Amino acid sequence: MSITYELIAQSPDHAARLGRIHTAHGMIETPTFFPVGTQATVKTLTPNDLRAVSASAILANTYHLFLRPGADLIEKLGGLHKFTGWSGPIMTDSGGFQAFSLGLALEHGVGKIAKIFPGAAEVPTRPTRKKLARIDEEGVTFASHLDGSRQRLTPEISIHVQEQLGADLIVAFDECTSPLSDYHYTRQAMERTHRWAIRSLAARTSSTAGLYGIVQGGAYPDLREMSARFIGSLPFDAFAIGGSLGRSKADMHHVLEWTVPLLPSGKPRHLLGIGEPEDLFECVERGIDTFDCVAPTRLARHGSFYTTHGRLNIQNAAYREDPAPIEAGCGCFTCQTFSRAYLRHLFVAEEILGYRLATIHNLHFILQLMKQIRQSLAVNQFDELKREFLERYRGGVGSQGSRDERREFPAPKRAF
Amino acid sequence: MSITYELIAQSPDHAARLGRIHTAHGMIETPTFFPVGTQATVKTLTPNDLRAVSASAILANTYHLFLRPGADLIEKLGGLHKFTGWSGPIMTDSGGFQAFSLGLALEHGVGKIAKIFPGAAEVPTRPTRKKLARIDEEGVTFASHLDGSRQRLTPEISIHVQEQLGADLIVAFDECTSPLSDYHYTRQAMERTHRWAIRSLAARTSSTAGLYGIVQGGAYPDLREMSARFIGSLPFDAFAIGGSLGRSKADMHHVLEWTVPLLPSGKPRHLLGIGEPEDLFECVERGIDTFDCVAPTRLARHGSFYTTHGRLNIQNAAYREDPAPIEAGCGCFTCQTFSRAYLRHLFVAEEILGYRLATIHNLHFILQLMKQIRQSLAVNQFDELKREFLERYRGGVGSQGSRDERREFPAPKRAF
Repeated sequence: MSITYELIAQSPDHAARLGRIHTAHGMIETPTFFPVGTQATVKTLTPNDLRAVSASAILANTYHLFLRPGADLIEKLGGLHKFTGWSGPIMTDSGGFQAFSLGLALEHGVGKIAKIFPGAAEVPTRPTRKKLARIDEEGVTFASHLDGSRQRLTPEISIHVQEQLGADLIVAFDECTSPLSDYHYTRQAMERTHRWAIRSLAARTSSTAGLYGIVQGGAYPDLREMSARFIGSLPFDAFAIGGSLGRSKADMHHVLEWTVPLLPSGKPRHLLGIGEPEDLFECVERGIDTFDCVAPTRLARHGSFYTTHGRLNIQNAAYREDPAPIEAGCGCFTCQTFSRAYLRHLFVAEEILGYRLATIHNLHFILQLMKQIRQSLAVNQFDELKREFLERYRGGVGSQGSRDERREFPAPKRAF
Repeated sequence: MSITYELIAQSPDHAARLGRIHTAHGMIETPTFFPVGTQATVKTLTPNDLRAVSASAILANTYHLFLRPGADLIEKLGGLHKFTGWSGPIMTDSGGFQAFSLGLALEHGVGKIAKIFPGAAEVPTRPTRKKLARIDEEGVTFASHLDGSRQRLTPEISIHVQEQLGADLIVAFDECTSPLSDYHYTRQAMERTHRWAIRSLAARTSSTAGLYGIVQGGAYPDLREMSARFIGSLPFDAFAIGGSLGRSKADMHHVLEWTVPLLPSGKPRHLLGIGEPEDLFECVERGIDTFDCVAPTRLARHGSFYTTHGRLNIQNAAYREDPAPIEAGCGCFTCQTFSRAYLRHLFVAEEILGYRLATIHNLHFILQLMKQIRQSLAVNQFDELKREFLERYRGGVGSQGSRDERREFPAPKRAF
């Protein structure tokens, strides 16, 4: 097998587990989080910076690299590792989610989760914008967001592109439905995804890349179970939960509860596109090993810093003369070197350095949190860590964490 | 005396010299170049990055910091060194040049040098835009570029602000004329600058900051000589050549030839706002010890990389698949780690990382060049180095160096 999963410890209380994924470019201790480097760069950071925040692996977006600079070019230059200078494991996604963003998500005006809190603005019930992607049995035809050119992805093309990129962890091509898709359409799309899964497996030629099968089925329990059983029965090296995760965090938790127990326990499980601190605890508890999400890096570029007391918006006037670091005791370069007052000045003056310093802090925060989670699993104290962390996180810094929560699921247009 | 200058070697052939400036925050080997950190950050870089490219001192802009975040704030937080994390020497300018940019330069539509090449577009002969600054005997009143608020700088305010910022090298407040100013006006402004020089000296209270007197007089030989003699006779710790440097590089060279020999040889000499590779050789040869200029960092953010064969525009399609570093043998982090193809991708995709990597390379290039110049002065081989360097630099990479040359003197509006 191309990659292997080593189970170190299984929680006796729930599905959480401690493990290791062995890849051609090194070992990944799980549970952990993969910073997102959409365009072959985790925005603002070098490989050295990523190592300094203890990143073990990163995720790059097939859709974006397929369009620019192109997979042929990256292959010619020796693959993503050589191109970017990042020598650790790299995961690529399939491009399916971006096709979704250009298609149904644009039409429905929604993201992966349509509505997060009761009382939040209602989701639209009729089409909002003309979709830019069309799905058929063979694959997806879409208009490039760069130049409007007509482009096509199929399971075979997606796997070929991911192998050209040289990723260690690659993903079967799938169709992602919207939380507003009805049962009938969601089932059709799931069945197509199953056929595409078989084609993705047949298309692989790499002997080193681990191939992830993707479970679909929206927020419908029977479809999710059907998909988990079917995809779980195929000879994938690992599995990912994709697609619509419902209309609330509770829905997302249910999706994991329906699917994870049906997947082979000897293989890694990835949750695509999720990764706020609260989510990490809830999803690890439900058996997820790895995560990727743009939230920590995107929030950073908007001046929103994670702290153990919730998120801190550095542009707040309260920090104007504040000589303290973002978080006392934080070991990241940013907190070791700069004051809130200086960081606020950089953001107010729109200085590029601020975006990098915030990205360093947020990734360090999330990756340290994952390390704490792993340590807690090793000594069976995950529940205590979760309770203590969430109590402090939700209670602090004016509950910015929950107020801004919807921003963690960016509208599809922001995916570009 | 607050700072001291140590002459290590004087060229027997011309005015070039090797020396050291001792300041409260460390020693500066001269000749050298100060990277510009306008808003208390050398754009995209951390203090660590600056040390890695061998910067010995940086320059920050009084005008910008006076307006935002304010000198009171920076003083309260312990001064610029503590605020920025840069522990080496810091120079501040007086704010006079920015007042010029809002005043005469805007009215005349010109920069420090009005016209550089014969045949280049003619400089305007009548007012182009309404000026935003007004000069009187006491000082300058201007409208903030941030919010249009009415602001005032005088010699006393400028010195006080620079002392609040805690700079090691501070500059007397001066009036900068335009290359289009006539003899009569240039003389008036020079005489005012002389009165302001005396007031700047009287206003200083710091026992550690070295105070630079500024020589004015435009491109008029008798005024420049008069100014050099007068300013040179005052008890400044160092001297700077400021103001209009004429209509060509030859004019600029003449200004140095008229003034430098009249300044006390035991004190450092700074040339404000100049710093392209060719200029460094020509001006070191004419006795300049230190330089500051936004060109290396601004060009970097536009994808223009210095090489020993001239400037290389990374967005050129020729570099699309080029696996080579920007310059073979370059020891900077960027060249040691990344290919032209990757850097081009970052610039085409407008990824922030590209701006930082280019800034690192360009500053490394300029600072290594200054180091070579110092080494050549130590063994009396400056002329050989200059000839070899310029021959290669001017001959290479499609003469981009000279084609783009006018960009090194940005129009005043770009100073913000």
